[in-house]
Amino acid sequence: MTDLKQLGQNAVNAKYKVQALSTAQKNEALLAVADALLTHADELMKANEEDMKAGKENGMHEGLLDRLKLTNERISGMSEGLRQVAALPDPIGTLMEEFDRPNGLHIEKRRVPMGVIGIIYESRPNVTADAFALCFKAGNAVILKGGSDAIHSNIAITNVIRGALKAQGITEDAIALIESTDRETTKEFMHMNAYVDVLIPRGGAGLIRAVVEGSTIPVIETGTGNCHIYIDKDADIDKAIPIIINAKTQRIGVCNACESLVIHKDIAERVLPELSRALREKQVEMRGDETVCSVVPDAKPATSEDYQTEYLDLIISMKTVSSVEEAIAHINANNTHHSEAIITENQEAAQKFLSGVDAACAYVNASTRFTDGFEFGFGAEIGISTQKLHARGPMGLNELTSYKYMITGNGQIR
Amino acid sequence: MTDLKQLGQNAVNAKYKVQALSTAQKNEALLAVADALLTHADELMKANEEDMKAGKENGMHEGLLDRLKLTNERISGMSEGLRQVAALPDPIGTLMEEFDRPNGLHIEKRRVPMGVIGIIYESRPNVTADAFALCFKAGNAVILKGGSDAIHSNIAITNVIRGALKAQGITEDAIALIESTDRETTKEFMHMNAYVDVLIPRGGAGLIRAVVEGSTIPVIETGTGNCHIYIDKDADIDKAIPIIINAKTQRIGVCNACESLVIHKDIAERVLPELSRALREKQVEMRGDETVCSVVPDAKPATSEDYQTEYLDLIISMKTVSSVEEAIAHINANNTHHSEAIITENQEAAQKFLSGVDAACAYVNASTRFTDGFEFGFGAEIGISTQKLHARGPMGLNELTSYKYMITGNGQIR
Repeated sequence: MTDLKQLGQNAVNAKYKVQALSTAQKNEALLAVADALLTHADELMKANEEDMKAGKENGMHEGLLDRLKLTNERISGMSEGLRQVAALPDPIGTLMEEFDRPNGLHIEKRRVPMGVIGIIYESRPNVTADAFALCFKAGNAVILKGGSDAIHSNIAITNVIRGALKAQGITEDAIALIESTDRETTKEFMHMNAYVDVLIPRGGAGLIRAVVEGSTIPVIETGTGNCHIYIDKDADIDKAIPIIINAKTQRIGVCNACESLVIHKDIAERVLPELSRALREKQVEMRGDETVCSVVPDAKPATSEDYQTEYLDLIISMKTVSSVEEAIAHINANNTHHSEAIITENQEAAQKFLSGVDAACAYVNASTRFTDGFEFGFGAEIGISTQKLHARGPMGLNELTSYKYMITGNGQIR
Repeated sequence: MTDLKQLGQNAVNAKYKVQALSTAQKNEALLAVADALLTHADELMKANEEDMKAGKENGMHEGLLDRLKLTNERISGMSEGLRQVAALPDPIGTLMEEFDRPNGLHIEKRRVPMGVIGIIYESRPNVTADAFALCFKAGNAVILKGGSDAIHSNIAITNVIRGALKAQGITEDAIALIESTDRETTKEFMHMNAYVDVLIPRGGAGLIRAVVEGSTIPVIETGTGNCHIYIDKDADIDKAIPIIINAKTQRIGVCNACESLVIHKDIAERVLPELSRALREKQVEMRGDETVCSVVPDAKPATSEDYQTEYLDLIISMKTVSSVEEAIAHINANNTHHSEAIITENQEAAQKFLSGVDAACAYVNASTRFTDGFEFGFGAEIGISTQKLHARGPMGLNELTSYKYMITGNGQIR
């Protein structure tokens, strides 16, 4: 079993060294790691083969096997991701606020690293490199705990990163991987408050729930998205249909995909025939309330469970309402606080929706698929936060930092 | 037993109503509550007498009895506190950032309420009114869970607040008090993730630890302060001594009081005689390492436990070091990440200290006692955060909010 306390202490020692690095030192290190991943591509693929073999033996699904697989192209992608993070502005040291008090104290609020960030994730090995890059650029040490399915790949990637850091004269403990994959280790990791400042789960709803419920370290909840699009009575149908098709079908397995439609009764009969035709063409199964089913003959009746489900599949639920207020109430009672959109030409309805929906991102006349670090212009992200504490929505570099008040005086006392 | 689910659902319903209130409506309500507390002062003191009587019967300490007691003066203080919160600027709706994307999407990041805030606190009944005022002004509903010692006082204060809100036409569920004070109820409360967005413990180290370890709701850790002052070799002794005496003795029971001194070896023999005289005059017991004890005859030997103790008493620990780096390492290994100060005329040492100490507030040549919402100019605070997630240092109104991205498009899809 991994000695987690030692690993935690090493990370704490490393965090002070990483936070003292200059922007240039961090960027050079990221570029060196990017190169090293390419140089060691064969090694990485060899390690990955062991995971793939075990996965096949354990009867892993095709989809999961595909996510697990490392290819030359994917390794280039990881490497390119590191280069992109190197090119992002360094958030550390930024002066966020500055003010003087009547007693002469000068107070500065500056961005500082979070310290040690823990990441618990599932089978995609590229997360190992991506998460390291973002945490490191924001001046943090990172402790990773990946899934057992990808353990050989994760060990290999971590070793390449550690080697490249060491060659740059940077502490290799800026990244550590917990190699034990048993439940007891995960449990102990989630209680390492003395060493870890924040824990971020990346993965499915089950993983996230387990971390939220089991961790005593502060957690940032990410990822699940039961996203809605509300077609208001004043919607422009020519906007509504392409947005819905895009949000539902452009990529079905992602958290910002649309899972449920809310439709104003006054527009239902006008929009549903064309909309259902477009969804049918894309092989989307429709599940609706009585009104929907009376207009769309092949729609199945939706249960209350349907309205709470993130399908991540070619299925969509549909509910009719009598007002924007009812739409907002329905969404807030069923959503996961991720992304919600209204389609309307009515300014008042748009404003009500923007303020009323309880979500990280509220859209007017646009696809929910834009909730994404790159689409927002933040660059790579560590996840989409669906909680209200600390960070909400796409979490880029700024969201991996904390702040500190630095106060300069000349002998002031109270 | 209180029906916590119902109470949680009522708070969720209330949060949507409170977040929709205008600044004027919130301020009028706060002033009405301030008046109501005065009008009902006799009732409040009568309820408080029951708590005082029970406290005396249970052999409660003088100090705790004093904190529990409500007088006309203290009720006026609570009322005045509400007026001060009414006078603070409303954070809700503030535009924090605004940008346009190449595809024409317009993105606004605006301050929104947190939603439902839970507060778990100990025996001071004034927290009931203070916490309500801050949470409400920041657009939140609040669920309070006070200590059993103050239960009659807390019920009475809550009822006055609810009555005043109702008379203003505002949902009285903007505030709820959990009346059961048993452990099971507290445990259930700490697992109400479906209703409560953030939980803030206010009280001693034991309460805070219990909430951090027991809650599945995101917690903001507040309060404990093992604060250090480091006397650098280049310190101005005339600044050092008044700052230390102020930080140690101006108010001993508070989290921003100084508990430990770190002294550069090169200045120890010069500063210790005068410093120890000043501390002795204030009846402060000194506990030091070998060097300190060799210079200060009445200093007792300090143990490693001393260096980790928040005394909240007339005791101070003292340790000598050979460099600012060693001082920082000692502080980071023993502190609670609250407030740390350096006394120096050396810019380089000051800068190293400001960046190196792992604390919410780092001071140069000033007392740690300034870590306080009013001293920072924020007004009333809900506590001092010692964690890095979400908020650090004094938590005023802004820190009781979250944000939301509001995105306006014209049919954009990916």
